[in-house]
This record gives sequence, structure tokens and C-alpha cells, in this order.
Amino acid sequence: MNDVRIAGVGLTKFGSSPERTGRDLFAEAALAARDEAGLPREDYEEIHYGNFMGELAEGQGHQGPVVAEAAGLECPATRYESACASAGVAFRQAVQTIRGGGADVVLVGGMERMNNLGTSEVTRSLAIAADELFEVRAGVTFPGAYALMARAYFDEFGGDNEDLAHIAVKNHANAMTNEYAQFHREITVEDVLESPTIADPLTLYDACPITDGASAVVLVSGDYADKHDVDAPVRVAGAGQGGDKAALQDREYLAQTPAATKAAEMAYADAAITPDDVDVAEVHDCFTIAEVLALESLGFYEPGEGIGAAARGETTRDGNLPVNLSGGLKAKGHPVGATGTAQVVEMTKLLRGDHANSGAIPDARIGVTHNAGGTVASAVVHVLEVMN
Amino acid sequence: MNDVRIAGVGLTKFGSSPERTGRDLFAEAALAARDEAGLPREDYEEIHYGNFMGELAEGQGHQGPVVAEAAGLECPATRYESACASAGVAFRQAVQTIRGGGADVVLVGGMERMNNLGTSEVTRSLAIAADELFEVRAGVTFPGAYALMARAYFDEFGGDNEDLAHIAVKNHANAMTNEYAQFHREITVEDVLESPTIADPLTLYDACPITDGASAVVLVSGDYADKHDVDAPVRVAGAGQGGDKAALQDREYLAQTPAATKAAEMAYADAAITPDDVDVAEVHDCFTIAEVLALESLGFYEPGEGIGAAARGETTRDGNLPVNLSGGLKAKGHPVGATGTAQVVEMTKLLRGDHANSGAIPDARIGVTHNAGGTVASAVVHVLEVMN
Repeated sequence: MNDVRIAGVGLTKFGSSPERTGRDLFAEAALAARDEAGLPREDYEEIHYGNFMGELAEGQGHQGPVVAEAAGLECPATRYESACASAGVAFRQAVQTIRGGGADVVLVGGMERMNNLGTSEVTRSLAIAADELFEVRAGVTFPGAYALMARAYFDEFGGDNEDLAHIAVKNHANAMTNEYAQFHREITVEDVLESPTIADPLTLYDACPITDGASAVVLVSGDYADKHDVDAPVRVAGAGQGGDKAALQDREYLAQTPAATKAAEMAYADAAITPDDVDVAEVHDCFTIAEVLALESLGFYEPGEGIGAAARGETTRDGNLPVNLSGGLKAKGHPVGATGTAQVVEMTKLLRGDHANSGAIPDARIGVTHNAGGTVASAVVHVLEVMN
Repeated sequence: MNDVRIAGVGLTKFGSSPERTGRDLFAEAALAARDEAGLPREDYEEIHYGNFMGELAEGQGHQGPVVAEAAGLECPATRYESACASAGVAFRQAVQTIRGGGADVVLVGGMERMNNLGTSEVTRSLAIAADELFEVRAGVTFPGAYALMARAYFDEFGGDNEDLAHIAVKNHANAMTNEYAQFHREITVEDVLESPTIADPLTLYDACPITDGASAVVLVSGDYADKHDVDAPVRVAGAGQGGDKAALQDREYLAQTPAATKAAEMAYADAAITPDDVDVAEVHDCFTIAEVLALESLGFYEPGEGIGAAARGETTRDGNLPVNLSGGLKAKGHPVGATGTAQVVEMTKLLRGDHANSGAIPDARIGVTHNAGGTVASAVVHVLEVMN
């Protein structure tokens, strides 16, 4: 099985840019990644690309060929749609392709354009990630669905809004030094608690923002990297994917996310590590409660123990296991179809030592990314490792 | 590299069933394939699934988890969208996954629900496979785009409507015995020529119908098949994918489809065969001219020579190279996101000898499927082979 290494990464500044087309956003990230990798254009064999709602946001399906042209490449391009896990799923298939010998050089990334729709239309569009027959028709939106999960967690294990507020505060603090982050504004626990309730118990500051942005990663096989002396110090050591019922009503339990647990177990087995080996993590905190559920699925905490991690300072930049040093979806922003590979971009820089927050983890060797779709009906986990 | 074999196939009857949900259609095809394969439910590790326009047709994105549940499986499911090549692309990635050792048992398929939208809305929805900025805003529809390609072909190489009509006649004749086909009606060259022009030079009978349907295939690794003595007499010997600019205006040439040529060359090299080794083909005849372009990209004819193949009887059921014995998209029907794997289902049965039209190719050992997205901006080619 061929080894998979990261030869270049690129991001757009996350934020609101309703005047920019999706192809324009992706081109910026892709060209940044290509510049960093410095590989010949003709060596690119495939593009794997995530996008969630381009049909609704800009009337563009079949985006593979569109973004291939935008990225300046002539190779075939495949689009993946797995809601907010679209780019994470694309990344996993790119890894599988290189491992299977199908390609040596692959561009993988994602893009989402959201702000041109406006808040109410974005909320309606995002809802297509839920079960249309059994949830959407009953009025489910994602703030509502995650509020149900938060309520179930509180009922089962305890915890409260103040615990969640510490997660938002932590992630906003981390984003302060990330030039690509949407928010550069420190907030306090009081700010979160006093912000308007959007779906009880979640407040506005428990939620990630609406974001336009793109991300891209150049992956190469170990054989190619060695042969061409490519500077690619971080490798993809493990990959895993899990699935669950689309509708919350069909699940046995709302206070855990078994799809992510399965993805993590698969990725750890693939990388031959345990949760204890992980030095740093980027997790899918679309809402603060989602970070709690992620920490537990990733095996960093027992069920019921993750809720206090930020408040106890264990996942802050000075903690034992810094989580979302990028600012996370909460403060870095969440261009949904781009997030999976954006996490890989951030983690790669953190591990290489050239991220603004790398100073928090000077000896880190192993990082994990956790990307989720819907109410974690889809989950993808990757293990990145600094090479010796 | 692990060998990939076909352990079971399933289809819905193609046609108009606007009252059936997408998940219901996919369940029927998936359960048929699972029944045929007869493998334990818990052995399924992944689902790879193609769908083009579920967001527009039934407001359902993130269909992976939805169809996994419909198929009675709990494994992770990934949705691919590459316009009318969605299921073909999903199939190729499923093959890559097994080859790379990522899974031993995979369900791959596709589904499209179209008739609930009505003709004008379907035409508008299909157009999102074209370039939104540079084609759709200028009024391009797919009948119009393929008419441009037909006109370019006629101008470059000659040929006329009567040549195209023979393709429609052939494919309708082939569909007569296919119980899954949408049309069971023989037509004449005169019928085609006298049908209304929809985009000059194409007439109504040059176009495939609007179809609801689903298809599914169970793939297993050679190791798994041998270990569990699985009856899987057809293997996937080769896979290839090609891409082109999304917009026709950005291409150098409209009378050929280089993305399909590249996909074919890749698939043939992968299978270590030449076009001369191919006994039978299922190609993407969304319009009659598309079959001509496919025959030439697949290397069966030199550019300009494919137009007369049906009229000369070379691709009919009694010809040297029967093409679209299933009836093709033209007469079997074209549920767009399901077509790529529907072609694999038909070809598998043709090669196994249990298709209604297998009698036309008693000694066939190698079959090719050709699936295209947009105006062949995406193309996927697979080589299937009967095992010794």
C-alpha cells in the first residue's frame, strides 16, 4: 500500500464575499496549494472535490469540470456531496486512490458559497442535509437538531450553557492569530450566555457563522515524493468513515455520535495509534455541543466527561490536548463543503510548525481531524503525522 | 492490487413513477442486488452512490445515509455527483477502494427521480450540468448543446439525420426484450425523421426519455470471493476517467469527445486490452449523436466513421460489435444519476448469459461501458470481463 503525503495546502480567507463565484474561491485555494507544492502541472492526475449546496447557491451542478478549469488543471475531477462532510469524504477517497495505486498526485479540496443566499435561505438550504421526509417536513433545522442533541446530553450527563460557552470563548481566542479566520474578536462567557437563544439551549454564540470559502490540499504518493524529492513532511497515517441514520428520530440515542466513533476507531486502527497518542485535534464544532460530542467519539473523554474539557482548560492552547487551535468552525468559519479539507490545511500547518498557533504545540507529532455531515449521520476522521 | 468482481446486480423497472420516493427506488435495486449476491448483511463495508439532482427533485441532499438505511445497511455511504456520470464515477471509486484494500464488499449504485418535476422543470434542472456562467445564462439546454455537437460533426465529417435515425431504431429494437426498459415499441427510420425537431438537427426521437429509476451492483474483492466461494463470474478488468472543460465554448473542437477518449485509453491500458478485444458495448446515447461520438472515443471507429455504423448494421444485434443491446439510454431510459451502474448491470447480465439479449453474443468475453456527464465534460469507461 502506497504511503500518502501532503505536499501543499491552501485556503482562502474565510468570511463573507457574496460577490465572488465558487470557481473563483476554489481557484484561489487550489493555486495556493499548487504554489506551495511546486509540482509540474501535468503531473496532476485527479481532483477530488467537496461541495454541499452549489445547486441551490449558484445553480451549478457538475462542478468537477468547472473547478478543474479554475484550478488550471486538465485532469478528471470528481465532486463529492456529503453535506458538511463533503470535503472530508473527498479527502478520504483521494487517500484511497493513492493507496490503491490509482494516482500519484491528487488535488483535493472543497468550496462553499453561502452568503449570497442570505440567512433564512441558507438555513433552508442547509436543512436538505436532514431527512426530507421525516425531519424537514416536520420543521427541523440544524440549530434545532443540535439543540435536541444538547438537551439530550444535558439530561443524560449533566452540564449546562456555561460549559458550552467556554468552548466558544476558547475557539474565538484561538482564531485571533489565524489570518484566515472569519472572526478576530475575543468573547467572554458572559457574551455567549447573554446572546440571543436560537434554539434552546443553544444561543447565537454557540453556533458557527455563515461562511464563504475554499480549501485545497496536494497529496502525493510516498513513491512520488521520494523519487522527486518533494518537501512533504506530514503524512496521512490513517483514515476512517462512519455512517448513521439520517433522521435523529431513527437513532437509539441522541447524546452520542456513533458514526464519528466508528470513523475514529477505523482511523486509529489504520494508523496503528490510540487516542492517547494524539497531540492536537481539529474537530467539527458547528455548534459548541458538537465539539463535546466529537471529543467523546474521538476517545479523548468518556461519555459525559467531554462537556467540561474547555472550562477545565484541558483543550485550550495551554491544555494537554489543544482542540481547534485554528479557531474551529465556530470562529474560523464554516464554508460547509470546504471544511473537511480546511481542517487538514490547518492541521498540516500546525504540525509543520508554520501555523500562527504552532507555538502552542512545539513537540506535536500526531494530529487528528474530525469532519461531520448533518447531525453526524456522516463522519470522517483522519490522522496526520509528522514524518521522522 | 486486489481483483474486483461483480457478485450481484439489481435494477428497478425504468419508466415514470412520480409517486415513488428516491429512497424507495434505490431500495428496490439495492435489495435485488443484495439478494442476488446473497452475502451477509454485516459484510458490507461501504456504499458508493450516484445521484445528480436530488436537491432539486425532492429537496434531499446528503443522500448517503438516507439510501444506506433504504438498502438495509449500516455502513458509511458516499454520494457522488458528476451529472449524468454520477453512478459511473461512484463505480470507479468503489473499484479503487477495493483495489487499495479499503474494503472487500461494497454496494455501488445510483438513483434518479425526474418525472415528478415535469418536462420543463427537468430541462431546467438538467441544465445545471452545463456551465452556469457561460452557457446556462446564455440559454443553453442539453438538447441544444448536443445539437451543436451534431451540427459540428455533420459539418466536419458528413452524415445526416437518417444516419442518426438508424441508431434510435436499433436501440428501440434492442429494448423490446428487456423487461426493465422504459419503451417496448419498435420504431422506423421514418418515425424518427418525422418526429418534431427539438433542436435542429435533433428530433424528439433522437433524444432519450425522462426516467425514474435506480440501479445497484455488489462488488467484492477477489480475495473475499475466493475465500467465501462467491459466485461472481464477471470481473472489473479496467477503469478510466477523463475530464474536459465544462463549457462547449472553451473547447477546441465540438465533433469529438476527448474526455471519453482519455477514459477509454486509461481503461484499456488498465485491462491490458485494445479496442479490438471488445465484444460488446453499452454507451451513453442520451442523444443519438452521443452514440456516434462514443463509438469513436472508444476506438471502435476512426473519427468520422462512427456515424454510419448502425445504418451499416455493424452495431446492431447481428453486427460485429453489438452496441446498447439493453436498448441504451434512448429506449431503456435514462434516470441520469443511476445510468452508470445501470450499464454495468446490463453488461454483467449480457456477459453472464442471463440477459434477454445474451443470445446475440454467445461467445462474448469482454464488454465495455461508457458513461458521460454534461456534454462529455466528464466520462468514465469500464471494462468487464468473463472470468475463465
